[in-house]
Formats: sequence, structure tokens, C-alpha cells
Amino acid sequence: MNIRLVLSLLGRAMMVEGALLLPSAAVALMHGEDPRALLQGALLVAALGLLIVKLSKPKNTNLRAREGLASVALIWVALSFFGGLPFYFDGAIPSLTDCFFETVSGFTTTGATILTDVEALPKGLLFWRSFTHWVGGMGVLVLSLALLPNMGARTGHLMKAESTGPAPGKLVPRIAHSSRILYKLYLALTLLQLVALLMCGLNLYDALIHTFGAAGTGGFSNYALSAGHFQSPAVEMVLAAGMLLFGVNFSMYFLLLGKQWKSVLRNEELRLYLSITLVATALIAVNILPGAGDIWTALRQSFFQVSTIITTTGYSSVNFDKWPEFSRWILVLLMLVGSCAGSTAGGIKMVRLNLLLKSVKHELYRAVHPNGVAVVKTEGRAVGEGVLGQVLVFFFAYLLALFLAVLIISLDGFDMVTNLTAALSALSNIGPGLNIVGPLGSFTGYSILSKWVLSVCMLIGRLEIYPMLLLVIPSMWRRH
Amino acid sequence: MNIRLVLSLLGRAMMVEGALLLPSAAVALMHGEDPRALLQGALLVAALGLLIVKLSKPKNTNLRAREGLASVALIWVALSFFGGLPFYFDGAIPSLTDCFFETVSGFTTTGATILTDVEALPKGLLFWRSFTHWVGGMGVLVLSLALLPNMGARTGHLMKAESTGPAPGKLVPRIAHSSRILYKLYLALTLLQLVALLMCGLNLYDALIHTFGAAGTGGFSNYALSAGHFQSPAVEMVLAAGMLLFGVNFSMYFLLLGKQWKSVLRNEELRLYLSITLVATALIAVNILPGAGDIWTALRQSFFQVSTIITTTGYSSVNFDKWPEFSRWILVLLMLVGSCAGSTAGGIKMVRLNLLLKSVKHELYRAVHPNGVAVVKTEGRAVGEGVLGQVLVFFFAYLLALFLAVLIISLDGFDMVTNLTAALSALSNIGPGLNIVGPLGSFTGYSILSKWVLSVCMLIGRLEIYPMLLLVIPSMWRRH
Repeated sequence: MNIRLVLSLLGRAMMVEGALLLPSAAVALMHGEDPRALLQGALLVAALGLLIVKLSKPKNTNLRAREGLASVALIWVALSFFGGLPFYFDGAIPSLTDCFFETVSGFTTTGATILTDVEALPKGLLFWRSFTHWVGGMGVLVLSLALLPNMGARTGHLMKAESTGPAPGKLVPRIAHSSRILYKLYLALTLLQLVALLMCGLNLYDALIHTFGAAGTGGFSNYALSAGHFQSPAVEMVLAAGMLLFGVNFSMYFLLLGKQWKSVLRNEELRLYLSITLVATALIAVNILPGAGDIWTALRQSFFQVSTIITTTGYSSVNFDKWPEFSRWILVLLMLVGSCAGSTAGGIKMVRLNLLLKSVKHELYRAVHPNGVAVVKTEGRAVGEGVLGQVLVFFFAYLLALFLAVLIISLDGFDMVTNLTAALSALSNIGPGLNIVGPLGSFTGYSILSKWVLSVCMLIGRLEIYPMLLLVIPSMWRRH
Repeated sequence: MNIRLVLSLLGRAMMVEGALLLPSAAVALMHGEDPRALLQGALLVAALGLLIVKLSKPKNTNLRAREGLASVALIWVALSFFGGLPFYFDGAIPSLTDCFFETVSGFTTTGATILTDVEALPKGLLFWRSFTHWVGGMGVLVLSLALLPNMGARTGHLMKAESTGPAPGKLVPRIAHSSRILYKLYLALTLLQLVALLMCGLNLYDALIHTFGAAGTGGFSNYALSAGHFQSPAVEMVLAAGMLLFGVNFSMYFLLLGKQWKSVLRNEELRLYLSITLVATALIAVNILPGAGDIWTALRQSFFQVSTIITTTGYSSVNFDKWPEFSRWILVLLMLVGSCAGSTAGGIKMVRLNLLLKSVKHELYRAVHPNGVAVVKTEGRAVGEGVLGQVLVFFFAYLLALFLAVLIISLDGFDMVTNLTAALSALSNIGPGLNIVGPLGSFTGYSILSKWVLSVCMLIGRLEIYPMLLLVIPSMWRRH
């Protein structure tokens, strides 16, 4: 492991975080608040980052897979820790564990909160809390790559470790260039969401908070009732549509810019994503019809909730914890599935679900035709056994992490549905779960141990398991 | 599909079932009960079976994979239906759906019941109910193969479709011979269990009932309190040890007879099975210690419950539904895992879990060494990508079945833990779940639709998914 190279990357990312804290300090000032907690945090992380960069000086900048994985894991942990300090300095969140939990939840675009009275927090801190969603959505490292000068390292492994999905496509040959295109697309869609929310009558601050939450598919709100606070069908529809767009693989938008309509329309992942959204919306709407009163209200509430859960955002417009069991279970399944790879969303991703379903079909074929020849195909091309195997192992590893997390947090004595949905919600970067961690609840009741376990789950989910696991394997750190 | 051949096999199995009903009629007579319901059932199924055999007359007895899969699925459904008729004829279970559910639960060695007052049933019927466990444990078809004259068909596909585990080994080259050896081993272990229970002071009838339940890893009891009825630590320990033995791959006993100690001791599946049993027992014992009073009681209760759940039997000596969440979750995980392949138990099986865990380790290695060469090994040999892929797909398909079943039964409005554990318990052939379907509860409250879904789950679990799925695929039934 080339530790100097890893540290050098860490230092650079920390400096970027220092800069990212400044807009929130400006927001604090504009609202007549004391910006010191945010500025102290910014100064501390940037100064430490600079020190680490100066001290590390890697001789060899050849970035192998292991350095890529280690940097990404380390950077996400460190930025979450330092990003949580302003809450601590301000005194808004008195426990360091809670500060870490809340900031991991922000960067990983989970949106799970330990706050029981979110509306009591100063506006500058709430802005920072939501801004982490926006930054984390596309990836803090991808952002660093886009902002920083090329450091000569082969950065492919970095982007691969942070991006979501089994085989993140490079849009263009150069990685730094790719990440800049991604951020431009992201910025454009973000502006679109912001303008749409402003047109619905939200003030700029509320619109920004909820735009960050939707764009990063995070879900932090500055209101206890989440999106339900606005009591506005228009806001509901605009947010639901917006979240759905951020759950699409961003390479689709790149294709659309190149007028490659057919490739987009034929994309299997996109079709599966939209089909599941449609079917889930319809099933839930019928199921909640008696409670909702009329079919349009049922459809709107259902569409909003399906969109917010399948994109792993986690906003709520109604208390879906009170919905019938059938609808609740559909939401749990959507929590597991998530959206498209290459989006800002979490979960196991549609592209994997697609391959998993195809491999079952393939096994059925093989059972009947033991000597037949058949391959699993997707997007018109055969899928190698290696890729298929990775996807299948990923699914098992994902559930293994879920089961172990539930086991540990069970020690706190909450009921099984709370524990199961809390861990699943953390792992898939959703935010709320059911029962005690439902849309009107919070994670505050969990013990310190459980909060750390759930924080690790969020990171495992966001970085798709392996970087976090490798961080604790000693052989990774051997000098060679 | 060679339908005549499939029907001919079905007819023969039905005739065997007719014969299997006779001992229960004798038990009824011995207890001074009216044996007519059992005799009517026997006569009906045997006569119909004979008719089908006479009418089918296959010209071609070349049994391909598809005929094997179809026969097995069809036979299990048919025998469960006809095996349930005595309950209906007697009036003990007035609903045909419930009769089917109870008999599927018997043959698949699940042990889930719709009876709310089991002690009210006549002894002959209760004997039949438990006897189905014993027959289904090793496989109704394997039994037919052992009993019936060789019909000239290549029966490998039959045994493969009914046996558990990814690659059922033939003990000796000839299948019919293999199945006879298996049944002899099964009979020997059954006698051992019976004698041990008699030595604990049980009367012959109770001992037989609980021997059938333990041997088939089924779990039907003739008492509402299950094994807890006897209030005897000795019975608890003897049953716990017995169940554990029936959860071992039977080929281990074959190896032991051949004095191949080393092969047995080195067997990875066996080691994983015993390790998990040990760890789970220890964890639960510590967790339930405050409620149990002293460590020995805690260990005994924990060992009994771990043994009965990991072997997918489903007996209970205490109401584990009242245990702390940590212990309850461990039991849920054991429900998913099950015991060894080639035993009478259900679940995804230890041999698969072993490969699943190894494939995660393998992926971690590959993430760090993208260009390295490594293969997954088990029992000292490399595992082909094909086998590994099948195991991984099986895991996904298993959970897919679970999730869909929970979705449908959720319509009945029971809570999520009840639904999740009811479906998992059915799929893994356990018996009880938690909450409403807990050890003192029953499945009687579910709707007719849900009972059919759960019955199908039991069959899917027992036949390891594919035969049942293929039964509903039209292209399977094409004439070619």
C-alpha cells in the first residue's frame, strides 16, 4: 500500500471540504447568525488538509486498485468526521457520535437524522447539513477530481471506487474530463429543480434545501414534517418528478445531449426503473384509496412516496408508516432495490436487479435444458460470467451486511421492524424507515454502538461495500 | 414433454401413498378409533394411482431433466392433496384448503399448522400427520424408487430434482441402490431416536410422533405446547441432539460406516454447521440468561431452540417469541440458513452458505488484486464458475420467492414480523415463526389465498425452487 499517496489524496479532499463550508457560513451571516462554528470547521479541516499534503509527498503516484479503494474509504470517513464538527462547535448537536452520524447521513445522501427538533437549528448549519447531500450525491472525490489540477495519478480506480453500479462507464476517455461533464449535468438538473420549486412558491432558502435533498437523493428537510410541511400538491409533484430524474443514470442525459434517443429508449435499466415505479405507484394507490379519499389524492401520495423511496431520497408528504401492510412492504422492497447505477441514488441498483432477474430466468432454462447453450444478455450484449458473478456476490454481501447490522442494533431492544428498516434504510441511503424510525421518528433513541454501526452501513451502502470492508483488512496495508 | 411417462410415475407414487396410509389406520384401530377416513383415503389414492398407471403406458421411458422436474413437482402436489383427504373425510379439518396446507406442511417437513386445538384430533389421524414428516424427510420419490421395481427409466434426474443441495452425490453408481442405502441409514437413525425417547420415559405413541418429527426435521407434535409439554430436560436434550444429527448430510454417515473419519472431520459443510450451532447457542444463552435464571437452563433452552430452528424442525420447549430481540433475530437468520444438504432439513443449506461466504472473500481479493488469479475452493477442490453461479442465483431466487410471498400475504393485514417469519418459515420448512405464527400460535388466521401461497412456498422450499417454477411455464409442456 502506498500510504503517502493515499494521505496526499486525503489532504486534498480535506482542503476542498474547507472551501465547501464557506457558502454555509455566508448563509449564516445573511440570516444574522454567528458563522463562527462553520468558519472554525472550515479553517480546521483546510489547515489539517494542507499539513497532510505537505507532509505526505508521495514519490510514486501510480494509483493501483488498493490505493483507490483505501483513499475513497478514508476520505469519506474523514470528511464526515470533520464535516460534523461545526454542529459540535455550535453546540447544536452536543454528542460527537451524533455529529458524525448526521454528517455521514448527509454525505452518503441518506437523510437519516438524530435530530428530534430540526426546526430549532440555525439556518447556516441546516444549509450545510443539506449541502452535504448535494456534494455527496455525485461524490466528494469526483468533485475533488473536477476541481483540483490533474495530479498525474491514474485516477480511474478512484472514480470506480466511488461511483455506483457494477461497471461505471467513462463518458469520455479522460476521467477528470468525465467528472467535469457529470458535474455540469448535475448542476444543470439542480438549477432546473430549484427553478421549479421557486415557481411553486417556495422561498429561496427552502427551495435550496429541498433541491439539495432531491438532487443528492438525500432527503434532509428543514421542517419536521418534511415535504408534508408545504401542504402543496404542486410541490409534491415537482419534487416527485425531480427525484425520479435524479435517480436516472446520468449517462442517459449525456446520450440525450448527443440526440441518441434510441439508445435511451431501449435502455433496459431505465425501462425497469420506470416500470417498477409505475407498478408500485398503481398498487399502493389502490391499497391506500380508502384512507386517501379519492383516487387522485391516492395516486399523488403514492407517486410521491414511491419516487422518494425508490430514489432512496426519503422525503415524506404523509406518514406512510400508517399505511396498510401491503403498501409498507412494497416500500421496504423499494428500499432494497434503489434506482439506477450512475445516479445519486443508493440501493442495489436497477442494473443489478435486471441481471439478477435474468440470471434466474437463465437458471430455469438450464434446468430444463441441461445441455443447452445460453448466455445472459443485457443491452443486446452477452454478460460475462465474471460480471454476473460479481453482481450476484454483491447481492449476497449486501444482505449479509444488512443481517449483521440488524443483529447488533437488536441489542438496543427496539422491535424487529424498526431494526430491519433502520439498517436497510441506512444501507440503501434512504433516511426514514418504519415504526420508531418512521417518517416522523428519528434515530436518536439508538445507543452509541448502534449509531456507529448504522453510520458504517451508510458508508458501506454509498461506496458499495468493498472499499469499507477493505479498510479493516490488515493485508491491504502491507508495504508493497 | 413426455406426459405419459410423467403420469406413469405419478400413478406409481400414488399407489405407494395408499400403502403408506395403512399403518395409520392400524394405529386408529389399536386406539379404538374408526379407521374409515384413513382407509377411504388409502383406497381412493391407490385406485386412482392404479388407473393412471394403466392408462398412461409410456412408450418411451427415457427420462429427461424436464420430465424429472415435472414428475417431482406434480407428485408432491398430488400426494399432498390426497394425503389431506382423510382429515376431510373424518371432518377433523373441514376446509379442503386447510387439509392441503396441513399435509403439504407434513410432507415438506415444515410443521406449520392451521390447527388451534391439536389435542382434539383422533390418534390415527395425528399419527398419519406426523408420519408424512418421516416419509417426506427423505423424499417421497426416493422412497418410491427404493420400493418399486426398476422401471427402466434413467432415474438420476428424479433424484436430483427431489434431493436437497446443489449437487447431490450418488453414494454408489446405481440410483435405486443409493436410495435404498439412504433409507436404511434413515431407518437406523430413526430407531436410535425412538429408543432414546422411550428411555426418557415417553410412551410408544408420543415417542413415535416426536421421532417422526425429529427424523424428518418436521416438527408436528400431538401436544399444543410441543416438546415443552413433557417438562423434561432429558427429552429436551435427546430431541435437540437427535434433530442435530438429522440435519447432517447423510453421506457423512455413509463415510463413517466406511471408517473414513478424516473425510468427515475435514468436511467444510459439517464444520460450518456445527460452528454456527455452537456460536448461536452461546450468544442466545447469554442473551436469555436474565429470563432463564441460571446458565445451565439458559444453555439448555438455547441449545434446544437453536437445534430445532437450524435443522428447520420447529419444535419448541419454551415460547421463544418472548425472547429478547437479539435472540429472535438470530433465530430468524437460522431460519434462512437451515442445515446441511443431503439431510432432511430445509433452508438454503450450509454448503451454499459456505460457498456464498467464500465468494465474498474472493470478491474482496479481486478488488485489491484486479489482475490476480484466484479460484474459490471447497473441500480442497476448485469450484467451477458454473456451480458458484448456480448457488448465487439460488440465493437470490430464494429471497425473491420470500419477498413475493410476504407481499401477497400482507394483504391479510397482519403485522410485518408475522408475515415475514410466516413466509420464511414456510419456505425454509420450519413450522413456527414469530408473533401470530409464533410457537404457541397457528396459521389459521390467514386467508385462503395466503394459505395457498404459503403451501406453494413450502413446496418451493422443499424442492429447491426450480421444479415448482417450471410447473407453471407453458414451454415446459410442449410435446417434443
